[in-house]
Amino acid sequence: MLEIYYAPNTSALAPHIVLEEVGAAYKAIRIDFASSEQQGPDYLRINPKGRVPALVTASGVLTEVPALLVYLAQAHPAARLVPFDDPFAFAQLQEFNSFICSTLHVAHSHRMRGYRWADDPQAIAAMQRKVPQSVGEAFDLIERHMFRGPWAMGETYTVVDPYLFTMAQWMESDGVDPQRFPRIQDHRDRMRARPAVQRALAREFAVP
Amino acid sequence: MLEIYYAPNTSALAPHIVLEEVGAAYKAIRIDFASSEQQGPDYLRINPKGRVPALVTASGVLTEVPALLVYLAQAHPAARLVPFDDPFAFAQLQEFNSFICSTLHVAHSHRMRGYRWADDPQAIAAMQRKVPQSVGEAFDLIERHMFRGPWAMGETYTVVDPYLFTMAQWMESDGVDPQRFPRIQDHRDRMRARPAVQRALAREFAVP
Repeated sequence: MLEIYYAPNTSALAPHIVLEEVGAAYKAIRIDFASSEQQGPDYLRINPKGRVPALVTASGVLTEVPALLVYLAQAHPAARLVPFDDPFAFAQLQEFNSFICSTLHVAHSHRMRGYRWADDPQAIAAMQRKVPQSVGEAFDLIERHMFRGPWAMGETYTVVDPYLFTMAQWMESDGVDPQRFPRIQDHRDRMRARPAVQRALAREFAVP
Repeated sequence: MLEIYYAPNTSALAPHIVLEEVGAAYKAIRIDFASSEQQGPDYLRINPKGRVPALVTASGVLTEVPALLVYLAQAHPAARLVPFDDPFAFAQLQEFNSFICSTLHVAHSHRMRGYRWADDPQAIAAMQRKVPQSVGEAFDLIERHMFRGPWAMGETYTVVDPYLFTMAQWMESDGVDPQRFPRIQDHRDRMRARPAVQRALAREFAVP
């Protein structure tokens, strides 16, 4: 059985939703960020990066959301969440995931995790001030150039959708006005209506 | 024929090497960062992100290095640069690429591109000061936990190798002592001995 290590309000929500979408047999294990459990020796043995998500499979542990999303799709081909047989379409999906992880998620991380890139408290505050702009610019690129509609990649729901949804859930707390992005807002609404999304959200935000 | 838009000292070197490895028919088009050509209207029509690399294919334009690397491997299956038929091995390869793009490359970018995440010059200077530490920690994780040897993923050369090599080329200018990472240094030496790597480097660093 698969195991996913997660914490609420992290990118782990994306593979968590995919596990629900494909109907996988899995166990979700919550890591307590308040007590820095992700940096403790037990968790570092599972994921030396000290981050979530981590996916424990019969073959070993996997990390990094874009890798997990495509792996779960490939391991559950009946759900058809990735167009593996069309190299260009697959590359477009990977391009979207890669933009989310290396640009959008990174911009967001400068709000709460600025200490990764500077020690000076004033520098960390300066990073926080720019988050509405940098996150907003990334969503702007998605809204105008990348999002195809009604789903991220077009007519077909793919693993990009839970990943985009996860980032869009942080828009308000990142200081970005959702009204600027009507297509992404419509996507959020349609995502929230999916039973798999509701199940993953209910588990992550249940009172422990 | 494929076209790759590149600039020297960018991550475009990784797909550029792969184009040479697979023997693709392609044209390499240099973008002049000194005159901010990547932000000019002609290039923004090709890649609205205003970054390199961009790969022009018969089906359309692709961006984001992890997407390009896997696409080039899938489009040139004889070179066997990605283990598509083994979902777990493929996921491990994707995990490595994703770590490079969202952690290692991002840490490096805080040296020259801090303006993406803060406006205050002192904050940008504070980011630059931390680059040796943050880049060093990412290489440390690769050296101790991710690099399998003799190639990044083990016995077989894959698309991860040009990507890791590209980042390792910046180690000295990022203020990281290469002697801390003997396995990555050995990998750099073996990469430099490959004719495909030599051809890509010669083109990128030729006097225009």
